[in-house]
Amino acid sequence: MTKLEEICSVAHESRIKVGTLDTDIKNAVLLQCADSLEKHCDKVLKANELDIANAKEKLMAPAMIDRLTLNKERIEGMADGLRQIAKLNDPIGEVMNMTRRPNGLIIGKKRVSIGVIGIIFEARPNVTTDAFGLCFKTGNCVILKGGSDAINSNIAIVSILKKILKKNNIPDGALSLIESTDRETTIEFMRMNRYVDLLIPRGGAGLIQNVVNNSTIPVIQTGTGNCHVYVDKDADFDMAIDIIVNAKTQRISVCNACESVVVHKDIADKFIPKMYKALREHKVEVRCDEYSKALLETKKHAILADEEDWGTEYLDYILSLKVVDSLDEAIEHINRYNTSHSETIITNDYDSAQKFLDEVDSACVYVNASTRFSDGNEFGFGAEIGISTQKLHARGPMGLEALTSYKYTIYGNGQIRK
Amino acid sequence: MTKLEEICSVAHESRIKVGTLDTDIKNAVLLQCADSLEKHCDKVLKANELDIANAKEKLMAPAMIDRLTLNKERIEGMADGLRQIAKLNDPIGEVMNMTRRPNGLIIGKKRVSIGVIGIIFEARPNVTTDAFGLCFKTGNCVILKGGSDAINSNIAIVSILKKILKKNNIPDGALSLIESTDRETTIEFMRMNRYVDLLIPRGGAGLIQNVVNNSTIPVIQTGTGNCHVYVDKDADFDMAIDIIVNAKTQRISVCNACESVVVHKDIADKFIPKMYKALREHKVEVRCDEYSKALLETKKHAILADEEDWGTEYLDYILSLKVVDSLDEAIEHINRYNTSHSETIITNDYDSAQKFLDEVDSACVYVNASTRFSDGNEFGFGAEIGISTQKLHARGPMGLEALTSYKYTIYGNGQIRK
Repeated sequence: MTKLEEICSVAHESRIKVGTLDTDIKNAVLLQCADSLEKHCDKVLKANELDIANAKEKLMAPAMIDRLTLNKERIEGMADGLRQIAKLNDPIGEVMNMTRRPNGLIIGKKRVSIGVIGIIFEARPNVTTDAFGLCFKTGNCVILKGGSDAINSNIAIVSILKKILKKNNIPDGALSLIESTDRETTIEFMRMNRYVDLLIPRGGAGLIQNVVNNSTIPVIQTGTGNCHVYVDKDADFDMAIDIIVNAKTQRISVCNACESVVVHKDIADKFIPKMYKALREHKVEVRCDEYSKALLETKKHAILADEEDWGTEYLDYILSLKVVDSLDEAIEHINRYNTSHSETIITNDYDSAQKFLDEVDSACVYVNASTRFSDGNEFGFGAEIGISTQKLHARGPMGLEALTSYKYTIYGNGQIRK
Repeated sequence: MTKLEEICSVAHESRIKVGTLDTDIKNAVLLQCADSLEKHCDKVLKANELDIANAKEKLMAPAMIDRLTLNKERIEGMADGLRQIAKLNDPIGEVMNMTRRPNGLIIGKKRVSIGVIGIIFEARPNVTTDAFGLCFKTGNCVILKGGSDAINSNIAIVSILKKILKKNNIPDGALSLIESTDRETTIEFMRMNRYVDLLIPRGGAGLIQNVVNNSTIPVIQTGTGNCHVYVDKDADFDMAIDIIVNAKTQRISVCNACESVVVHKDIADKFIPKMYKALREHKVEVRCDEYSKALLETKKHAILADEEDWGTEYLDYILSLKVVDSLDEAIEHINRYNTSHSETIITNDYDSAQKFLDEVDSACVYVNASTRFSDGNEFGFGAEIGISTQKLHARGPMGLEALTSYKYTIYGNGQIRK
């Protein structure tokens, strides 16, 4: 048995005990973890300094170093995150749809933990406490595989959490960190379907594709968002512009930001110059199709898009712009190029709104609102492990329920099948 | 674009139209398909004769040839299956948990089709109509990849169904059959995650493992069942024996049949000889651990088990038998060797029953009833595409709801994120 296999097998063996812990115990542990993290802040910061020094030596980009960097406030934020999770309702144990069958069998669908969840993530040490908190609250054992750039920070954080687990007699497999950060270990981890029930990659498109292509463990894909705003011919122009500016510029680096605007031809000549003006106040560049380029002919920051633009998640002050002849064409364009994350229609027409809601194939489909609301907190879930862009198990913002499965429990009194 | 890629891409492009068909139309099509199958019974039988002749030439085992064989009654059974599906409630469109957020956004979770579902199956031509019916009723496009031994039958059946689809202006991608049956095509199909949302293998453990190891499409594993009956020290002996005999012998070739019995030591010496006698009336062979072997010392059909027996799904008149010191040991044994399908405890003790329900890690956990009830019809689902033995998306008997996803639909009036 390799070291990695041992980690996975210990987690697998711990799953029943962790899955049946009482809510009171889980909450107490989460609060103790939060306190201990703050108490041992210096230890974490020292480890983090090592990671930052290594990153600087490797000439890592400043934005990346910023993501990697911890300070007292950020550690307090991580601790508060754990306290928030402690406050949420525990979904485990709820029984849904209990029915009595004609033969007297009583069948209920009971919400249970999934078992062992693997999280593969990049150099953001805050994911460590966040993923642990959400998985532990739902009675799952979690195995973390973080990026090599944050390894010292992750080891320090996990050792603090594990001490609290031990103090509370929680099985050791409840939380594990894979310390080896080489590529071979990552590939080996993805093939551990014998022990691991679910794998969630958190990071860029490259990481996610690698996991999808290699994992034998069921995967939930999260986070890529090429989100569209469609402005229908019956749109309120001011509302449309407010929403586009908000969805594009309120926070540019997030998956629910708008990356592409689609406009109905009937209003294009009046709407597009107004929209351009508003976007330029935020220094947004517009990548146009030929029709809209003609409308913005004299504008310096309206350039011609190429095919690749329609599928691009810029995460920058750029958006693509397409003019369509009809709602049908808009829906077809969106369904061709989107990432099934979030799209919105701006319209006052009832039929257009309903048709868009029905036919756009995305996790979150809006009428007259910004795509920026696709978020576990905004949806009222209280927490979020990510936003699923696939259709199996969980779609859209994933709260605690997305980290649960169910089992059928059946009460009989001697029934046999005839 | 290869021929296979074209099939998958056409299905993908058809998914919106098929996913938004009205229930009335879907039901009418299912009924017409049923009638047409019966009307063209001779055409199907002729194609089936070809498959049977080829199978005989290849010296296929008689049981396999029986599974492959169609006759008038079996075709009528397939048609009736479609009529049954037409009668079921259409789950698509249901909106769950609609709430109004503090900012006025109205968020609902709407049940929608998954999109494109691939089914890889072996030489059972009835799966063709069955899988099509369930997928079509839930607005999904289905791509079938059947075994080479049934290829002529499958082509004949699918061509009858496709004519009805065409007559009703249903997009061509609603139903596709991959006619090429070589291994390379199967592997290529499993990598079509760009177009296919879900892959369900229906067949033996070898097929399922191959799909799990190679697919980039999310997979639902179904059907392997190493099901246990645990006889607690407080069990009613007669009830226990009735249930064991039923679960083992009522139908031996099915995944919810009992394959292993676990008995508490306190009652072993009284219970096991009685149970052995009852099982022998059905010619069941018992593979014993050392303790139970000693109790059945003189019995010819009680032989010593080896390690492999504990994990074996016999699908035959054989079961393994293990004596344990405690309920904890029983649960540990079951969780080590089961396939997470169905297990039952026979007991009159309240705490034992609750503990077993909580801690046994299976899709269906019973108290005082036969494992043979793990079945979509017995659970009241009206139909079943298989029994999932994994924890993501769907667990246990999978009815129509297991073939659906959801999207969030959000109604706003100009909300932007602050």
